[in-house]
Amino acid sequence: MITLYNMPLSGNCHKVRLMLSFLALPHRTVDLASGEQHSPDYLQRNPFGQAPVLDDDGLIIRDSQAILVYLAKRYSGESYSGEQWWPGDAYQLAQIAAWLSTAANEIANGPALLRAHHKFGRDIDISKTRQTADKVLGIIDRHLRSSDWLVGDSVSIADIAVYPYLALAPEGGIDIGAYPNIVDWFHRIRVLPGYVPMPGMWQA
Amino acid sequence: MITLYNMPLSGNCHKVRLMLSFLALPHRTVDLASGEQHSPDYLQRNPFGQAPVLDDDGLIIRDSQAILVYLAKRYSGESYSGEQWWPGDAYQLAQIAAWLSTAANEIANGPALLRAHHKFGRDIDISKTRQTADKVLGIIDRHLRSSDWLVGDSVSIADIAVYPYLALAPEGGIDIGAYPNIVDWFHRIRVLPGYVPMPGMWQA
Repeated sequence: MITLYNMPLSGNCHKVRLMLSFLALPHRTVDLASGEQHSPDYLQRNPFGQAPVLDDDGLIIRDSQAILVYLAKRYSGESYSGEQWWPGDAYQLAQIAAWLSTAANEIANGPALLRAHHKFGRDIDISKTRQTADKVLGIIDRHLRSSDWLVGDSVSIADIAVYPYLALAPEGGIDIGAYPNIVDWFHRIRVLPGYVPMPGMWQA
Repeated sequence: MITLYNMPLSGNCHKVRLMLSFLALPHRTVDLASGEQHSPDYLQRNPFGQAPVLDDDGLIIRDSQAILVYLAKRYSGESYSGEQWWPGDAYQLAQIAAWLSTAANEIANGPALLRAHHKFGRDIDISKTRQTADKVLGIIDRHLRSSDWLVGDSVSIADIAVYPYLALAPEGGIDIGAYPNIVDWFHRIRVLPGYVPMPGMWQA
């Protein structure tokens, strides 16, 4: 049985909720109580004290990007549709890995952190965080000018890793309408079979 | 032909230099001139304006973690030795992906940023950066208490992604001797066939 340790308002958790739904994988969701991610029990699962964590019959995986890798590799199969999520080609895989790094760093420390400040009162360096956000949003918008998806000709886990905190960027005071190619890409993701919205997520 | 766009003092570039050497891959190295990473030409290769970039016969890959994925997947083969760098098992792959995220985020924004401040005068929030560094170093040290490598029973690209900025941490004012399991792991990496040191790198 797959268990997702979840926080409803976390964009990182939303990546996993999306992937589980796209792959139609049966699972149970455990919403963490306030502060539970710092409990000794939970730190056994993830010493970083963060959600999400996935438990698949005792195999414990931390980090939203890593969970996407796991689900795509293990459950998306070798079908054409499977190859979309997790290509076998080294170059395509590397391009996906580059966007997973961007999700882990620039997006986490740009748009996601701005939202954490505006929505949850996190203490941040607003000007630096804004600069990080503007840079990464500009790069992604230009990238999507000439392609429908972040990597190759179809959706992949790169899109799923990048999507939630860009869709949530308006909650951090960002005018996402200034990035029309990103908004178009939102629409392509939102019509994928199995798409689930985030509670209260702003829809362009 | 493989070309590495390189900065000699960059720990991110050192990840790639290590991997190219471990795999004994013929390549040429182009050291970037000061500021060249922001030139229009270079931004074509990497819109983030950062080194390293790998060019393999026209296939361009940005991001040090992504380059490790590419080299391991494409060039480490299906041999037992290949499986060490890039396992076929979904759970092991996910554990590697989790450490690649840690390298891209906590290590880049902890020990690597402290070094950038001390060595290159980067303007940072010292107390927050120090906190990030202490947390990630403590987690890695505890992880290595019971295992020789970050993932599984042998070296993988997880170790290569994490190693350089931990080995360079003393240049950021960190007493790495306080993390004895990390220092032991340094020694295991440094005796691997093909290991190359970083110019001027502190050796515990």
